[in-house]
Amino acid sequence: MLYFQEMLGTAVFAITGVLAIHKVGVDLFGAVVLGIITAIGGGTLRDLLLDQPIFWIADFNYIWVALFAALLAFFLTTRFQQRYRLLLYLDGFAAALFGLVATEKVLGLNLAAPLAVMMGVLTSIGGGIARDVLAGRPSLLMSREIYATPILLGCTLYVLLHDAFPSIRAVGWIALIFTSGLRFLAIYKELQMPAIFSTKRG
Amino acid sequence: MLYFQEMLGTAVFAITGVLAIHKVGVDLFGAVVLGIITAIGGGTLRDLLLDQPIFWIADFNYIWVALFAALLAFFLTTRFQQRYRLLLYLDGFAAALFGLVATEKVLGLNLAAPLAVMMGVLTSIGGGIARDVLAGRPSLLMSREIYATPILLGCTLYVLLHDAFPSIRAVGWIALIFTSGLRFLAIYKELQMPAIFSTKRG
Amino acid sequence: MLYFQEMLGTAVFAITGVLAIHKVGVDLFGAVVLGIITAIGGGTLRDLLLDQPIFWIADFNYIWVALFAALLAFFLTTRFQQRYRLLLYLDGFAAALFGLVATEKVLGLNLAAPLAVMMGVLTSIGGGIARDVLAGRPSLLMSREIYATPILLGCTLYVLLHDAFPSIRAVGWIALIFTSGLRFLAIYKELQMPAIFSTKRG
Repeated sequence: MLYFQEMLGTAVFAITGVLAIHKVGVDLFGAVVLGIITAIGGGTLRDLLLDQPIFWIADFNYIWVALFAALLAFFLTTRFQQRYRLLLYLDGFAAALFGLVATEKVLGLNLAAPLAVMMGVLTSIGGGIARDVLAGRPSLLMSREIYATPILLGCTLYVLLHDAFPSIRAVGWIALIFTSGLRFLAIYKELQMPAIFSTKRG
Repeated sequence: MLYFQEMLGTAVFAITGVLAIHKVGVDLFGAVVLGIITAIGGGTLRDLLLDQPIFWIADFNYIWVALFAALLAFFLTTRFQQRYRLLLYLDGFAAALFGLVATEKVLGLNLAAPLAVMMGVLTSIGGGIARDVLAGRPSLLMSREIYATPILLGCTLYVLLHDAFPSIRAVGWIALIFTSGLRFLAIYKELQMPAIFSTKRG
Repeated sequence: MLYFQEMLGTAVFAITGVLAIHKVGVDLFGAVVLGIITAIGGGTLRDLLLDQPIFWIADFNYIWVALFAALLAFFLTTRFQQRYRLLLYLDGFAAALFGLVATEKVLGLNLAAPLAVMMGVLTSIGGGIARDVLAGRPSLLMSREIYATPILLGCTLYVLLHDAFPSIRAVGWIALIFTSGLRFLAIYKELQMPAIFSTKRG
């Protein structure tokens, strides 16, 4: 079940990755590479930093799913763009899922809670940032969109609940609903960072 | 013999790396760093991902060769530019060589063929992409030049031949001739990606 | 004492990191992430390449210090900007310190002197370059500012002195004074790379 969700999340990340760079103008090869990087970039960086085997080297299905999804997105761009809003919500769910699974993974290595939160956020947003840097686009680090903050809050909630109720499995689901709920709200209300938290005008 | 070719390829990559960023405007230090990164970036990323010792830490000659070649390219830019077409062919040969050597290396670690192909392509194009990102130039991922496709096809041919004829050593040479031949053709005919495989107009 | 200096250096790097991207326009989240990356990016890359445990995973205080300093810089930007010149000197001292500590660390792993110098320079400038690439700014690799050259010369001096006088502890202090002195001179005199070492006009 979780495995299926992770594969779905991988596919969604690859699709939104290809759609994001579509306007910049890109070839099939570049689109597929950037789609795959969007999907696996964050987790790859996490595994490198933690000196763990890279997850997609251990299980190449992540690459196949991302590759196939990126190909679909490249050739059926218009169809996916018509469902962009649905994709945006799916992307929010995938980002929440990836962040929380990573947080759980780091806690499972008996590492400290703050590190687990940091790695959760990194896993969640690292791929999209790598794609934007490679495509020469401003990344979400430079945007006022509320994307990373829900992940940060959700992963923090998760480690707090995990510490308070270590034996309760539902903790993960609560954190997942909380995290993706926050992101869904930001999408639905088109929320931006309050001006006090930004050096940008307008 | 292979070692000599690898060193030649390292030098060629460092030289084309410096020439590529020359117009952007760069200092001696930046030029040398970017030349070295062009030459060793792809293999470094490959070794990091595979959790292998970084090849140039094990054998620092790669750095010396890249350093010396980058210095030459910085001070003798005009001379090298006059031979740019020759360099372009040498670069195509080096890219093919690096890709195939990496593919062979990954197969030698008893890892799967698709991963070997992926690492071959990464080794071949990773350094140039890293250079372009660091120099703020659009990388080949955003271009319609036919650079990565020959490597992808050549490394795929290599793993297929290697699987079909495991005991025949000439397999590597056949793949090398095929890969660099494809790239030479793309340079000679100034081929671009067909429009159907590109979201760019013109 | 060294630990305190390293923490001070981490804080200074995080602060100058936030100030550097302030004008581009960035949110609290982006500012803090980029400040932390400025402070720890170079050492992280060094540890990855040397296959050592990442220093801030082993001791999370580096992250806390960088995080706190980045928050301060975000909310008290104007105050820090008024002391920008002092910060520039502190940054030069921190860069020298990080470079030399890294050089010493690599020599302590019984690796060769040229590699130690290379890793010293990488540790010192890697974080700032990563920040600039992520923020879409031209990095110091593309600038004529004299930033990396003092580090390169200072780390080289250190390995030479360390080789000639292995038992004398003052060697590190001499190299530190030399390295930061060179950088202070470049700041004070607003020195630029001589035109012969640059492909840029003006």
